[in-house]
Formats: sequence, structure tokens, C-alpha cells
Amino acid sequence: MKPVFSLPLRVYIEDTDIGGIVYYVNYLKYMERARSEFMRSLGWQHDSMAQLGRLWVVHSAQLNYRRPARMDDELLSSLSLRELGAASLVFEQQISRAGEVLCEGLIRVACVDRQALKPVPLPAVIRTALCDFTGKDA
Amino acid sequence: MKPVFSLPLRVYIEDTDIGGIVYYVNYLKYMERARSEFMRSLGWQHDSMAQLGRLWVVHSAQLNYRRPARMDDELLSSLSLRELGAASLVFEQQISRAGEVLCEGLIRVACVDRQALKPVPLPAVIRTALCDFTGKDA
Amino acid sequence: MKPVFSLPLRVYIEDTDIGGIVYYVNYLKYMERARSEFMRSLGWQHDSMAQLGRLWVVHSAQLNYRRPARMDDELLSSLSLRELGAASLVFEQQISRAGEVLCEGLIRVACVDRQALKPVPLPAVIRTALCDFTGKDA
Amino acid sequence: MKPVFSLPLRVYIEDTDIGGIVYYVNYLKYMERARSEFMRSLGWQHDSMAQLGRLWVVHSAQLNYRRPARMDDELLSSLSLRELGAASLVFEQQISRAGEVLCEGLIRVACVDRQALKPVPLPAVIRTALCDFTGKDA
Repeated sequence: MKPVFSLPLRVYIEDTDIGGIVYYVNYLKYMERARSEFMRSLGWQHDSMAQLGRLWVVHSAQLNYRRPARMDDELLSSLSLRELGAASLVFEQQISRAGEVLCEGLIRVACVDRQALKPVPLPAVIRTALCDFTGKDA
Repeated sequence: MKPVFSLPLRVYIEDTDIGGIVYYVNYLKYMERARSEFMRSLGWQHDSMAQLGRLWVVHSAQLNYRRPARMDDELLSSLSLRELGAASLVFEQQISRAGEVLCEGLIRVACVDRQALKPVPLPAVIRTALCDFTGKDA
Repeated sequence: MKPVFSLPLRVYIEDTDIGGIVYYVNYLKYMERARSEFMRSLGWQHDSMAQLGRLWVVHSAQLNYRRPARMDDELLSSLSLRELGAASLVFEQQISRAGEVLCEGLIRVACVDRQALKPVPLPAVIRTALCDFTGKDA
Repeated sequence: MKPVFSLPLRVYIEDTDIGGIVYYVNYLKYMERARSEFMRSLGWQHDSMAQLGRLWVVHSAQLNYRRPARMDDELLSSLSLRELGAASLVFEQQISRAGEVLCEGLIRVACVDRQALKPVPLPAVIRTALCDFTGKDA
């Protein structure tokens, strides 16, 4: 079984739409929050990337919506690392409520040069931390 | 060649993020605006669905990000209809700038009952209008 | 000194804009999250209002921006109750970082009928809970 | 009577919330779109400021909500210039539908240095253009 990182979060009015449920676009935000906290848990923030002149950018996203999240819900935004490439990562992500999966995502994130926005290798220190997390050799 | 519906739009500060480019989540909004205007061009608004006790919900989304859109850009949000099912539609969508594709999406939208949020057949009048658009028989 | 309710929160990429700081519009969201959690701490959610056929709507907002919040910041969204009217509340709100106030707001929220969107008296149970919070008689 | 600049806009699902109306926070976005287009009409974009190492930041905002905007509404976001200071501007703004004012705002925008985020004088070319707009002498 793959190691999982999870972030609890709450649904607020800002997240809802006229359908009375969470606006489907916002699940991407919930997934990103988990990635940000996951990186922070490895000692790594936006700033750490910026100082190296690098940036994460999302390359592709696949989302499947199973059931709606609702106002005031307590959700769990979870991720595991599916691929650890030279210059990109693929996260398998889920938004769930009380163990029930509401939305699944596959998100490819690339490490790019901040100016040119072209792919560059992951910083070595991140690669090591990610390998530690997955329990594999770098 | 498939018929295409297009909506021009402008990038504002609200759309950007700390990377200095359009926040990738917002392309889903750009794509939805085009679907809303497309439906309106067929004489169909949110309200028309609500009066029938129905709602559109997004079932799945696949997004590929090719190049970043930037502040003040004039973009084109285009769509064609890839599938016309009994209770769902699949849109092929593009966000482009001056003919260059920045982001591509495949969005499956289901027609659901407003209360139960369960799939129900497309209203006949919409089905007819969509067939007219695609140039196929209902 | 007035009783204060506070909610800690974190700045994510979704909150930032091209200026590299938190998009000023989003402080309104931060303030609302604190009001929602405050109401929940009194045993009161969106749903509790909906079941009574009522809704909170914001009537007016005054915002003063002093200093920018930044990516990855840990903020505190705090509120006190300035006015407890028959059909409305005025909240004094602050967003701060490590004790430094970044943004101040004065938010008037009205209790309205869900259909007509017209002001109606606060539910008695909320009024009592709010009086308990402020330490005043109902 | 003061000269007025207006931008038409449409309400989409992204703008709504669980109350079934436009989420009050989003009026700030509607107002900003009008300011951006107003500046563009004077030959001035975000980029023009960035090249001078300057940025607009919102200093304060006062908002009064009169009536709700609704899904699919066609709105008008209008502004006039109330104050033209050395380093800041005050805009009087309105969101209206078919001549009826839904929301009013008073928005103070400061011209700041992009790095320090400290107030700096308006670029002379903007000041001249703004005086032309208001019909006053610089």
C-alpha cells in the first residue's frame, strides 16, 4: 500500500454554487492545498522553490466527480505519489467525506524555471525527501 | 470538421496567481463560460433547466496545459460537441490566444434531477437543438 | 474588552495574484470563514438557518488594507460582535499575522427570508447564544 | 455630472453561491474588471505599470449591497473618478442591472512600488489621461 498524506478541510460558502453543492472547480483547490501541505511537511514551501528560481506548474489534470460535497462538510484531501519523474510528479488525489470518495484526481505537476517556465530537474533535496516518503531509493 | 462555438474573454487580475500567469484552476471557469453561452445561443439558460427540475453537473474533466495565459490576454474559449448521450454530453474544449492553443479540455456534463442529483434524460428541446448544431439527426 | 473569536488559516496559491501577494478580494473570504466557524461554535450552521427558511446575507462591508499577506503565511481571522440588531449583526473583523493587523473589516450581515431575501428577525436561539457570547442580556 | 466608464458583464455559475444569487465577494471582482478596462481605454495595462516597477493595490473598499444579482444576469459595472490624488485614486463604482443599482462601492487604489509595496506618485502619463477623462486640469 502506498503512503498517503491527508489534509482535513471544511466547506465554506465561498466553495458552493447555485446548485447548492460545492462548485466542481474548487476540488482542484482542495487538491492543491493537500499538495502544498504535503510539500511543507517535507520542509518545502513555495518560497523554497522561488529561491531556486523554480516553480511548480500543473501540466495535466484528470478529475472524476462521484458525489457532491456540501456546505459545512468536513472533508479529507488525500494524496499519494504515483510517479516521481526527473522534472515532474504525478499525484493520485482524493477528496472524501467520512470514508466515502467524492472526487478523484490525477495531477501531473512539473518543476519549471521561474522565468522561462520550461521544465527543469527537481531539486535534489526534494527528490530525496520524496523518495523517503515513498520508501524507495532515489 | 465539427461545428465550433467560441467565446472571447479577457484575463483579469482575479484570474492570476503568484506565478504571474493565469491560475490553472481558472481555465475550468473559462471553459464553463463557453458552455453557458453556447447553451444560451441555443435558447437555453440555467433557469430553463431549473424550471424543469434539472441541473447540469460536471462528471469528469481532463485538462492539458500547454502554455500559460497571461494578465490582460485576450483569449478564445472554444468548444465542439464530441458526444451526445441520453443523459450526458461530452465537450471538447480549448482555450487559445491568437490561434495558439494554451489549454485543452474534455468535459463530461450530465443532466441530473435537481433534488436527487441523479442522471435523467436531456430535455427533448435541448437534444433537438444540439442535433441541429452538430448537423446530425436526433 | 470585547470577547473575540479567532480562526487560524493558511495562505495557498489559490489566494494569491500576479502581485505576488494575497488577492485583496480574498480577505472577505477569510473573514467569512471566521464568521461561519463562530456560528458553528454556537451550534449553528448554514443548514440550521436553511431549515428555518432563513439565510445570512452581507449588507455592507468596509475594508482597510494595511499590509499584504503572503504565500504560505499563517494568518488569524478574528472577529468581535459590534452590534446585535433585531435582524442584523455587525462584525468587527481582523486578519493578522503574528500579532500584526493586515486587514480590518466592518461587516454588516442581515438575517433574511430565504425566498424573498427580505430582513426577518434573528432566530431566538441565535440571539440568546450571541448574548451569551458578548456577555450581555438579550 | 461626472464622466462614467461602463463595462457590461454576464453572471456565470462561478459567480454564484448556495444562496442561489451572486456571491457578494464577487462584486469586488466585477468592479475591478471595470477599473482594468477603464485603464486600458486610457492606453494603460497591468504591464505598463509593471514596466515602470509599479503596481496598483487596493487600500480600502466600502461596499453596499442593495439587491442580489442572479445567474445569467446581464450587469453593468460602472465607475467614475471621485478623487485623483498624488499617489492614489478613489473610484465610485456601481453594479447595476437594467438601470437598477445592485451594489455600490468606493474603492481607493494606491500606486505603489512593485518591490517595496510603498506608495509612489502616479506616472505622469496616467495622471494626464485621468485629467482628460475627468475634464479637469492636471
